[in-house]
Amino acid sequence: MQSKFSCPRGTTDITPFDISRWDNIERISKQILTCYNYKEIRTPLFEETELFARSMGQSSDVVCKQMLNLAAQQKDDQDGVTLSGLSLRPENTASVVRSYIQNGFDRKEPISKLFYIGPMFRGERPQKGRLRQFNQIGVEVLGPNTAQPYLDAEIISLSVHLLKSLGLEKFQLKINTLGTPEDKENFSQMLRQALKPYRKELSEYSQQRFERNVFRVLDSKDAADQEIVKKVHIGLSYLSTESQHYYAQVKEALMNLDVDFVEDQHLVRGLDYYTHTVFEICGSSLGSQDALGAGGRYNNLVRQLGGGDIDAMGFALGVERILLALGDKKVPLSNPLAAYIVPMSEEALNQGFVLMNVLRQENISCDLSYKYSAKLKNVLSNANKMDVHTVILLGEEEMKKHCVTLKDMQQKKEETISIKGNDFSKIINILKERYN
Amino acid sequence: MQSKFSCPRGTTDITPFDISRWDNIERISKQILTCYNYKEIRTPLFEETELFARSMGQSSDVVCKQMLNLAAQQKDDQDGVTLSGLSLRPENTASVVRSYIQNGFDRKEPISKLFYIGPMFRGERPQKGRLRQFNQIGVEVLGPNTAQPYLDAEIISLSVHLLKSLGLEKFQLKINTLGTPEDKENFSQMLRQALKPYRKELSEYSQQRFERNVFRVLDSKDAADQEIVKKVHIGLSYLSTESQHYYAQVKEALMNLDVDFVEDQHLVRGLDYYTHTVFEICGSSLGSQDALGAGGRYNNLVRQLGGGDIDAMGFALGVERILLALGDKKVPLSNPLAAYIVPMSEEALNQGFVLMNVLRQENISCDLSYKYSAKLKNVLSNANKMDVHTVILLGEEEMKKHCVTLKDMQQKKEETISIKGNDFSKIINILKERYN
Repeated sequence: MQSKFSCPRGTTDITPFDISRWDNIERISKQILTCYNYKEIRTPLFEETELFARSMGQSSDVVCKQMLNLAAQQKDDQDGVTLSGLSLRPENTASVVRSYIQNGFDRKEPISKLFYIGPMFRGERPQKGRLRQFNQIGVEVLGPNTAQPYLDAEIISLSVHLLKSLGLEKFQLKINTLGTPEDKENFSQMLRQALKPYRKELSEYSQQRFERNVFRVLDSKDAADQEIVKKVHIGLSYLSTESQHYYAQVKEALMNLDVDFVEDQHLVRGLDYYTHTVFEICGSSLGSQDALGAGGRYNNLVRQLGGGDIDAMGFALGVERILLALGDKKVPLSNPLAAYIVPMSEEALNQGFVLMNVLRQENISCDLSYKYSAKLKNVLSNANKMDVHTVILLGEEEMKKHCVTLKDMQQKKEETISIKGNDFSKIINILKERYN
Repeated sequence: MQSKFSCPRGTTDITPFDISRWDNIERISKQILTCYNYKEIRTPLFEETELFARSMGQSSDVVCKQMLNLAAQQKDDQDGVTLSGLSLRPENTASVVRSYIQNGFDRKEPISKLFYIGPMFRGERPQKGRLRQFNQIGVEVLGPNTAQPYLDAEIISLSVHLLKSLGLEKFQLKINTLGTPEDKENFSQMLRQALKPYRKELSEYSQQRFERNVFRVLDSKDAADQEIVKKVHIGLSYLSTESQHYYAQVKEALMNLDVDFVEDQHLVRGLDYYTHTVFEICGSSLGSQDALGAGGRYNNLVRQLGGGDIDAMGFALGVERILLALGDKKVPLSNPLAAYIVPMSEEALNQGFVLMNVLRQENISCDLSYKYSAKLKNVLSNANKMDVHTVILLGEEEMKKHCVTLKDMQQKKEETISIKGNDFSKIINILKERYN
């Protein structure tokens, strides 16, 4: 016997035995996103590595350590295929912005409200809630002169509406603002100033980040670092008056929408491209991997990637994190099979095969037991396991009398229907009346 | 200005401007697959390279030339991530079989009817109908002792039903049989014998394939090869009596289902794993890339990949090929927006924002023009472009009189609704009556 294969580390199979939870999340999300007038976009699953480096920041953990790159291909005489400098997408904002620029969305519509649902890839050490292939539901809103506090509030409240509709109850929305790039620079200088007295006490990791990207110190998982960070209070003094006003309006709009939030001045998000409003949603039961989703405004990224002066904001929710947070909550099953045809002889199998095809052409979901058995008990025990509405029995008696027996498996009652030749219209009508 | 990025060669963006064609294909396919009692499975987008080599054949074009491999990652002190020997999936049969074995499907159900819809990856030279990231809709049916002619016919007729329901009219179903592995070996010997007199006249490519894998000569794109192949007639004499009987039953079952087919004795399919029934569906308008889909029975692959004695059969349809064959056929638009709120002052914007949120909570799809304008003409010309049912106007007059104007954009009529404070129930009722 040959050795068995397993799915690669940090990946999982979604089998029919658990697909309904995924189906449910995607169906509900698409319904809400459509209700908010967001339209789906699908970009390729790999892009130029440089796109991610320029958007997420050359020094970010993702770009430095977690990118899954494609191997350069050897040239072949006939096909001449060369591939290099490509990576699987670690997130989708850069790809959506690239597509927005390349396809000239700004010439087609004044504002683009986009959503995506799909897999992302990171070469991380796998752990609970952290996979190498994982799924995100995200939105990006782009358009010239669309930086408006109301839109920020719409986007944040959409993320909350999604999570609530998916069945999550206990989570916390944290918000903060980074202001303009100038404000952000002020913030980083004030942060360095405030951390200076403690610099020697910081972890090695944070000491390295101190000069290069001081915001990373605020994200540190080190307990001592976290204690130091708690002592630092900067307030909103790094913000220009205009940025303070913008932030105040975002908060007011959120309150108008009855969206609960807390302000967290240490929320800075791990990516370089954020400006102004940033937010994060944490579950209460997820341990260290507690972020269900996060997002923020990124008014300068489109220009940075070669496009025009386009304001933008977005967020992404982690589907695996949502599933973890939902725990074992039951998901209503998708529709059970309308009919299961059970032949008890070879002749009955022939007839059942034709009947099945007729029902399927009429959009009545059904299947056939290809292994016929003359033992009614065997036959029905299989059907019982299957979650089926009606069993259509083709036994010896039925074949003789040109009829079928319909057994309603929910109501535990049965009736006999006579058929003429291959005219199954009576059966079709009964099943359609019951299930459509 | 920074340089712009493009999507990688051989990949495309699916934007909101053409997503409805994709939505349509996926929605209809899922509905039919569910009707046939097939359940969705999702495997990771990359697997061990060895899995594909062992299933598709070490010498197949796909494995030799078209695999997209992941680059091995450098070890990092903190995370210690290493990745090697992994490839993006070039097709999905091997992955589904791997998952079937790993998750012990055969202990959970006597027959597994599975489907998938998703991206595949090949490092091919891009051309019309041939992409590096492309999409397939496929099914795999696995289970011990499930090799039955009726099931073969069900699977083939399902592929035809799918294509017809997606709007395709002109295509041809070709079928053939390879028999058991012993029959297949007979076939290859007889084929070599028949081709021997022409061996020197074959293309260099086919001469190479002659010893290693003579079936590939039948697939050759070379015109001279194709002329030679036409002269070769082998009949079904390579088949055992049992295999001939099996094939005859498959054809009879297809006829019972009114599925049109032609027999093509030169149809062998490009992959090593096929046994018995194979089939291919070709469009009439696709030029050299004319296969819309193909499939066949592969009774030995599960054991070959480390599993038990499990019969199996499947097919895959190419979504991009289907879209090409459909041409510019119109796809009905998904639902237009129920309401678009147009404020004409800052005060009206405040009110419109709250109204929008209330409507969305009621599942009424709507959006708001965040840029208010006092000029009715500007405002309405935007709304006209948007494919929206009802415009909700919040003008100066309306704000004064505490009312809104509902403009039905289809029926070109309007009505004024008075509102009390933030009680929008009248508007909700009108919109729900109209669109739900």
